[in-house]
Amino acid sequence: MKTIGILGAGQLGRMLALAGYPLGLRFRFLDPAAEAPAEQLADRLTGAYEDLVCLQQFTPGLDLVTYEFENVPVTTARYLAQRVPVYPPPAALEAAQDRVVEKQFFHQAGLSTVPFAEVNSRPELTTAVQQIGLPAILKTRRHGYDGKGQVVLRTVEDLPQAWTVLGGVPLILEAMVSFEREVSLLAVRGREGTIAFYPLVQNQHREGMLRLSLAPAPGLTADLQQEAEECGRRVLSALDYVGVLAIEFFQMPAAQGGPRLLANEMAPRVHNSGHWTIEGAETSQFENHLRAVLGLPLGSTACLGCAAMINLIGTIPPLAPLLSLPDVHVHLYGKSPRPGRKLGHVTVRTPDAATLLARLTVVQRLVHDE
Amino acid sequence: MKTIGILGAGQLGRMLALAGYPLGLRFRFLDPAAEAPAEQLADRLTGAYEDLVCLQQFTPGLDLVTYEFENVPVTTARYLAQRVPVYPPPAALEAAQDRVVEKQFFHQAGLSTVPFAEVNSRPELTTAVQQIGLPAILKTRRHGYDGKGQVVLRTVEDLPQAWTVLGGVPLILEAMVSFEREVSLLAVRGREGTIAFYPLVQNQHREGMLRLSLAPAPGLTADLQQEAEECGRRVLSALDYVGVLAIEFFQMPAAQGGPRLLANEMAPRVHNSGHWTIEGAETSQFENHLRAVLGLPLGSTACLGCAAMINLIGTIPPLAPLLSLPDVHVHLYGKSPRPGRKLGHVTVRTPDAATLLARLTVVQRLVHDE
Repeated sequence: MKTIGILGAGQLGRMLALAGYPLGLRFRFLDPAAEAPAEQLADRLTGAYEDLVCLQQFTPGLDLVTYEFENVPVTTARYLAQRVPVYPPPAALEAAQDRVVEKQFFHQAGLSTVPFAEVNSRPELTTAVQQIGLPAILKTRRHGYDGKGQVVLRTVEDLPQAWTVLGGVPLILEAMVSFEREVSLLAVRGREGTIAFYPLVQNQHREGMLRLSLAPAPGLTADLQQEAEECGRRVLSALDYVGVLAIEFFQMPAAQGGPRLLANEMAPRVHNSGHWTIEGAETSQFENHLRAVLGLPLGSTACLGCAAMINLIGTIPPLAPLLSLPDVHVHLYGKSPRPGRKLGHVTVRTPDAATLLARLTVVQRLVHDE
Repeated sequence: MKTIGILGAGQLGRMLALAGYPLGLRFRFLDPAAEAPAEQLADRLTGAYEDLVCLQQFTPGLDLVTYEFENVPVTTARYLAQRVPVYPPPAALEAAQDRVVEKQFFHQAGLSTVPFAEVNSRPELTTAVQQIGLPAILKTRRHGYDGKGQVVLRTVEDLPQAWTVLGGVPLILEAMVSFEREVSLLAVRGREGTIAFYPLVQNQHREGMLRLSLAPAPGLTADLQQEAEECGRRVLSALDYVGVLAIEFFQMPAAQGGPRLLANEMAPRVHNSGHWTIEGAETSQFENHLRAVLGLPLGSTACLGCAAMINLIGTIPPLAPLLSLPDVHVHLYGKSPRPGRKLGHVTVRTPDAATLLARLTVVQRLVHDE
């Protein structure tokens, strides 16, 4: 019986464990947070990722280590990798933790991104705005998530206020482009290099947080899927990646020519836009991540009909009305409600897109997030 | 957040917890065994079901109690029911624990069974054989499972040996009938009386243990399903039942007239012949049991294509070849291998029956049980 160590014990870790128990696995989590969704169903150590004593308690008996959180310190991942296999490779964390490094990595791998510039001082902000143009988004290079650590700049008058809010840490200025929609690719690569892709998903964010994913992305063409997979293949190979990786893209209008997909960011882990795979795909992203890191054959990524995933943010709606609807599957994370917190998600899976849209309207009426 | 107490921490309890975490539930198990599959993913008390001190430690903070094991002492269930809601009702345990009481209950509810007779002494065995005829099966009335505690009688010469093996405890003699096949009905009834049925499943036993279930039962007709559901409805109503209940039937040849289904036994719990529902039905038996006992709306019992469930008994085959097959889903219970022990199961789910049979042949070659 193999035991997998997971850095981070949030909902992603929890769903990894739920997918892994049927494979006969055991889990041990490490997370600094007081409350951790995965601790309800597995052993959990509480401690900082940088705490060597804690890391030494964490590793004995582990067959391998993985993470559900991309901001695990790279030094921690490298320290662990000297003691036990760590997947995905720590280099993937490094590439994903800093928005400038990430975009440079995308370019090196042959992917396109929006224009961007480093910003390390107030004068550099002015120069960057002249270079990139407005509107643009000023973001912290590190530790941003769910829309935190970013400010939209529409006119030069927005610069002083934005600098007051974000200045003092390394920043990036990104051009705001008129994209058609946001899509994401869930990719998985096994230890032997086998690669599989889920179909592109269409994502809808509000206030920087993912609200809705539709899978497959409506109107998805073979061309677009192929372009995404080519991007995915380049990233996976460049990192000698093992496990599930998510890449978020802006899909640009076809008329503009050139690539349709601009890589926005990547997550070297299972991803919120892949939760639909639990019911909507032959093999879930969670099971496929575990298969990959264990060196087992990857499972089919084929869809079972169409799916929509709606995040439950801030409050949990009454369960009975939701569960009385056909085709609806509820996933709660065992977290205390708090504004802006992802508490669960609902997946609607139907045989066809028309039924999906009909169901979705009803579900969205029941799910009033803040 | 609700906490459910479960008596018995075997694989059924483990799969109940795996289905219940996404509903935001927590679990506490009670089981006397040294090794218990559910303890890997939930709190577990170790102690006898009759141990009052243990039961008093078990109940605080529980919202309700259910069981995964039908041989929990009825007195225990009644003791708990004075402190916390217990579903299914303890009366269902009572009806299912004794083969004579069970068959009498079936008759009272209007179901048919094979001819049977009580046997409490050696002379009564002779009388029962004269009354029932041979071949027949002599069984202990209580605590038999997976073919244990039973002997087939083919001629009167078999009687002395059978008596030596089983005599001394209350017995039942059952006629051996020439049935077409064994089928089982998974039924679920909510707290408000709503009832749902999964399609009949065809079961194949060997050495008294379930080896293979096919869902829906090949060639299942609407008439047969209706006859089974009528039986199910009678049993559920008679017991004012809440939760999932399994009834095993012998399906008799149509030519004989009368009822096609003879009730063999029932299990007031989730059942091995319902494991296929995890991938093969819209809502699994485990989730529906939890929905029922919580008073939540039942989920759809519709099939997603066809499914076959193969038990892994005694040994676990290498995972990689199994996982490399399409449509295959592996479920291990985290148990140490031991001859005759159910260690896991494999479900094959396909869009149609022809593909199912093709896959099944391959899977069965890989799954060599003892």
